[in-house]
Amino acid sequence: MRILVPFDARDPKTRLSNVLERSEREEFARVMLVDVLDVLQRAGHEPIVLATDSVDCDCPVHIDRRPLSEAVNAFLDEQTLPVGIIMADLPLLTVDTVERLFDSSNELVIAPGLAGGTNGLVIRTPDFRVDYHGTSFRDHRRQAKDSGIDVSVVDSFRLAVDVDDPEDLVEVLIHGETETAQWLSSVGFTVDETGDQPTLSLSGDR
Amino acid sequence: MRILVPFDARDPKTRLSNVLERSEREEFARVMLVDVLDVLQRAGHEPIVLATDSVDCDCPVHIDRRPLSEAVNAFLDEQTLPVGIIMADLPLLTVDTVERLFDSSNELVIAPGLAGGTNGLVIRTPDFRVDYHGTSFRDHRRQAKDSGIDVSVVDSFRLAVDVDDPEDLVEVLIHGETETAQWLSSVGFTVDETGDQPTLSLSGDR
Repeated sequence: MRILVPFDARDPKTRLSNVLERSEREEFARVMLVDVLDVLQRAGHEPIVLATDSVDCDCPVHIDRRPLSEAVNAFLDEQTLPVGIIMADLPLLTVDTVERLFDSSNELVIAPGLAGGTNGLVIRTPDFRVDYHGTSFRDHRRQAKDSGIDVSVVDSFRLAVDVDDPEDLVEVLIHGETETAQWLSSVGFTVDETGDQPTLSLSGDR
Repeated sequence: MRILVPFDARDPKTRLSNVLERSEREEFARVMLVDVLDVLQRAGHEPIVLATDSVDCDCPVHIDRRPLSEAVNAFLDEQTLPVGIIMADLPLLTVDTVERLFDSSNELVIAPGLAGGTNGLVIRTPDFRVDYHGTSFRDHRRQAKDSGIDVSVVDSFRLAVDVDDPEDLVEVLIHGETETAQWLSSVGFTVDETGDQPTLSLSGDR
């Protein structure tokens, strides 16, 4: 299936500013993107990057500088359905997880993100519009209900963990099996397991 | 299957102290427990509560005041395997989610929690001991590897979200389908969706 992967190429992941410099955040965002694209390709799909600026990667890139929801909906208008949409900051994604998005043939499949987000969608009806602002999971379900769209929800930890805050990096270090986890290790991040809860730790030379 | 549900009956959920009084935390912990027991029973299992003190509920209660891992391992020693272990603070649990724990017949099945925890286990080998301290998911996997135990990991958001911090209550309010979400609403919690990220909000009379 054609799968759109929205990607913010300009000053990405600002909530990681206290642990990563801007150039590191840009590199980190790109490492996550490449991981996601690689998993999607290995799962037999055709990822297309929807980016705010040019991106060097091994997939078609569609540039649109409008706000996220507007750009995605404009892209959807031009596509033959079904289309998938998967976020670029999901470094725990595996081929098995991606396949679970396609287990059901409902008109709409939603994979929630932590804190009310929407990290994965499969759209088989032209009646659905994305709206990523705010608590988008709730809004997307409400819209589906109001429009009589059959919806199924995928229960996946690996799809739920998007990377926004430093604590999300702990999840990547614990569960990551891809380049992103290796990249975090290479720049000096480890998990400090000495306390009650694991916390993000930085090697001394950073 | 016989499923052990560890439950801290004394001063539970202290990390919610800034939003709930002690008596409310006790009531809240019990509402979550009852939700989990109900889901396990509806999924056809036999839950047994392993509690630090007496608990009024509709299931057998085994009281053991030792630290969690010690009490669980002592209980395991007396059981005929397989045995499941599911945490009492998983109010997003559904029958479908519970069933996914039993999809594989591996000697050990682990469902990770957020922040490196272990929220669900199915144990089919006498060679495995629990150790809930610290980053238990990592430790449990390491132990399985070192002991040559076949392990499978269940990828579930609903099993991963345990309730420790106020931000976890947001997940319950957004995704909860059980009494726990209703209880939170009844005491005045709502989700404030006006910002970029949903946050926990309290009605004015609290």
